Amino acid sequence: MSDPYQHEINVTWGDCDPAKIAYTARLPYFALDAINGWWEAHLDGDGWFQLELDRNVGTPFVRMEMDFRSPVTPRHKLICETFPVKLGTKSITFAVRGYQDGTLCFDGLFTCVFTIADQFKSQVVPDDLRRIVEPRIRAA
Amino acid sequence: MSDPYQHEINVTWGDCDPAKIAYTARLPYFALDAINGWWEAHLDGDGWFQLELDRNVGTPFVRMEMDFRSPVTPRHKLICETFPVKLGTKSITFAVRGYQDGTLCFDGLFTCVFTIADQFKSQVVPDDLRRIVEPRIRAA
Amino acid sequence: MSDPYQHEINVTWGDCDPAKIAYTARLPYFALDAINGWWEAHLDGDGWFQLELDRNVGTPFVRMEMDFRSPVTPRHKLICETFPVKLGTKSITFAVRGYQDGTLCFDGLFTCVFTIADQFKSQVVPDDLRRIVEPRIRAA
Amino acid sequence: MSDPYQHEINVTWGDCDPAKIAYTARLPYFALDAINGWWEAHLDGDGWFQLELDRNVGTPFVRMEMDFRSPVTPRHKLICETFPVKLGTKSITFAVRGYQDGTLCFDGLFTCVFTIADQFKSQVVPDDLRRIVEPRIRAA
Repeated sequence: MSDPYQHEINVTWGDCDPAKIAYTARLPYFALDAINGWWEAHLDGDGWFQLELDRNVGTPFVRMEMDFRSPVTPRHKLICETFPVKLGTKSITFAVRGYQDGTLCFDGLFTCVFTIADQFKSQVVPDDLRRIVEPRIRAA
Repeated sequence: MSDPYQHEINVTWGDCDPAKIAYTARLPYFALDAINGWWEAHLDGDGWFQLELDRNVGTPFVRMEMDFRSPVTPRHKLICETFPVKLGTKSITFAVRGYQDGTLCFDGLFTCVFTIADQFKSQVVPDDLRRIVEPRIRAA
Repeated sequence: MSDPYQHEINVTWGDCDPAKIAYTARLPYFALDAINGWWEAHLDGDGWFQLELDRNVGTPFVRMEMDFRSPVTPRHKLICETFPVKLGTKSITFAVRGYQDGTLCFDGLFTCVFTIADQFKSQVVPDDLRRIVEPRIRAA
Repeated sequence: MSDPYQHEINVTWGDCDPAKIAYTARLPYFALDAINGWWEAHLDGDGWFQLELDRNVGTPFVRMEMDFRSPVTPRHKLICETFPVKLGTKSITFAVRGYQDGTLCFDGLFTCVFTIADQFKSQVVPDDLRRIVEPRIRAA
């Protein structure tokens, strides 16, 4: 696996609006796909679905911010460099940087809190997840 | 029309994820729908589609930030209070605040630049749009 | 309420692809929104979300077919005429006809089965739903 | 490349509804992604976007039909077996069969017409595309 994790997205016709670029509201979708992909890559294939249903851990988002720097198109794969930048007692912040053909298209920060999924109640970061996240934290 | 403009969204089953709340990536979609609705409400029904195709004015996004404060569900209409907070020489910033049953679910700021659509080149805010936006600016 | 039920959709920029018409895969979304709207209109606001969570009734789809007859654009509201055409022992079929400015854009048939939601097991149509559906059946 | 072409989709949390399965309206999206992927696989990476913009060939859909046979979940990759079943003078029909872990989840037929993209006018199948499609036709 590359370090940091790179999530590849095949942008297509259906992602684009009449300006012939990916519709803005698709870009948070792509970024979230990349964050889910980060979990899958580091938890033996388990993403949010398995975290919630099998491990009873939810990670709802409390904040996102994104800067859109260059249009995203179907001309190149979208490579989303994704890594944690901060792990709090009960929260995690990811950075996602989307590149096409070496050009930065967008970057963003996304903060989630950890919950006991079936109670929708916040919890401290579970130890096994902390052990996975901590060594992979980088500066944003 | 209410002031500020209120955009109503019917959140449904298909917007929700297995946590039984609207999937996070749907919320920027809703906010963008509300901003498009603001234009429609103030330009005799013209939204981004008509701005781009009929008036040759594009308004691509350069930044968004959103705080997610309470889950969005199909139990109540989602009311998106939407208004401009800043008009620059070539850019506009909108605030969107999503409420359900009186509770603030999310709020965000969204900045767009004005372009000559068929040249994908930035331009100063067209005068007719400036006249519409300026009196409706409010503090975020 | 009009008879048959008419579900109005505001098609926008974000629904369109570079051909400047609504992306084909958006049209089944619109049709499903209309069917959910039919339930809401006839069950005091309850759509699939409330059917599943409050009444423990699921209605998963087993078949859809759609003919696309004319492009859908943001130029006009999309009016989806929606009505049941058949009620079986355990299933229901809806017709949805999408019109813009009087032109038929698409029509389709959609069949769902009734389930006990928390068991994901088929069931006969619940009596209260049968009483609502039967008088509203029309020929496709 | 496998024959017939297999398009792999990573189904995730965000594709699922509160029933913990992929929302029905996502399935036509997946099928269309697979058909676009078929073109990309057989046209050196060119999908609908490049067909339309670089080759001036549009392929709008005129019909789809899908049978939903088993729920789609994030537990397994979704493998969409995709191949042409018929090539008319001006149209093409694709079959898409979605499998997870060897189980058929859905199958469908999708018919497109060929157009001169910038005129939105139908045309006979371009010769170079006919040469690619014909040897790959299979019975549905």
